[in-house]
Amino acid sequence: MPLIRVSLRRGKPVDYLQALVEEVHLAMRETFNVPENDVFATISQHDEHEFFVDATYLGIERDGDAIIFQIVASNTRGVDMKRALVARLTERLSKRPGVAPRNVFVNIVETQTENWSFGNGVLQYAPEPQL
Amino acid sequence: MPLIRVSLRRGKPVDYLQALVEEVHLAMRETFNVPENDVFATISQHDEHEFFVDATYLGIERDGDAIIFQIVASNTRGVDMKRALVARLTERLSKRPGVAPRNVFVNIVETQTENWSFGNGVLQYAPEPQL
Amino acid sequence: MPLIRVSLRRGKPVDYLQALVEEVHLAMRETFNVPENDVFATISQHDEHEFFVDATYLGIERDGDAIIFQIVASNTRGVDMKRALVARLTERLSKRPGVAPRNVFVNIVETQTENWSFGNGVLQYAPEPQL
Repeated sequence: MPLIRVSLRRGKPVDYLQALVEEVHLAMRETFNVPENDVFATISQHDEHEFFVDATYLGIERDGDAIIFQIVASNTRGVDMKRALVARLTERLSKRPGVAPRNVFVNIVETQTENWSFGNGVLQYAPEPQL
Repeated sequence: MPLIRVSLRRGKPVDYLQALVEEVHLAMRETFNVPENDVFATISQHDEHEFFVDATYLGIERDGDAIIFQIVASNTRGVDMKRALVARLTERLSKRPGVAPRNVFVNIVETQTENWSFGNGVLQYAPEPQL
Repeated sequence: MPLIRVSLRRGKPVDYLQALVEEVHLAMRETFNVPENDVFATISQHDEHEFFVDATYLGIERDGDAIIFQIVASNTRGVDMKRALVARLTERLSKRPGVAPRNVFVNIVETQTENWSFGNGVLQYAPEPQL
């Protein structure tokens, strides 16, 4: 169920963009208990004056290839799973499509499990209604 | 106070886009205890390679007309109201502008009631400051 | 660590856009306990039919210069700090780049402190892993 929001500077090739989402999904499969085919994501490309990532915060050097990943997911994972996710995600992206680990920014936003509809007007993960 | 984020593939007519926001707002009026005129929304149109919605997850067939609705709202509604919202929203959209229920994805993100300023630098829904 | 999402109508000059992020960051430095250089933000420009801000909700007049600020931050601040933030942010923006206070909409989304990676695949604000 995660909803992945990818934000980056405009201009990467289509296969680079596609790889970002595929690799994040694979990292989630490995570390975050996400089912196969559960891929819902948007990519927003920004001009230079629309995208702000500090160049040195916390002593990490970032440049125009930095990418912001915002992952909205249910609040069912503890810190160890989050730690595994960002480590694996960053490792995967360094190999394909080739994003330097220093350029990978991740923010996780958590919701209740019931807060998702995957279609047909139903909250698929909510408890059955009490009739 | 909800803030509605609509994401979809680029290319729908202007009146189609407008209807999406109007119908979600009407569904919220009916089911989610949202005041009249409380309409704050953005629509982001994406190219095909920027928009990812799995074609079969949970056995629901989605296509290029799928729409992701992210609704940020105060955490004052229970699961029954959320269930009513997604049901009504999906029903309304199937009539106008004509979105197949299988193509309606909804995610609700909840915040504290105090987390909103509607202008003038004031948190209109926060308790009065203790002086 | 805040992640700032700025949404507005398309067409403002580059220095106007840059000022929005700079002034929000400065307001956060003054009121929200945000470190120097902790600037991570995106700006999304929308066509008229993609951007919806009610013209009168709560008796506040908004127009095409309205701006939606969504601030994702850790859940470590109380209502007084939030109140100070929106007041200071709105005051600053009225001076530079010149946004009418009635046109400043702010929504704060809170996450756990551990939910951030600023690069290198590490959750920099999470507790040390138990080994």
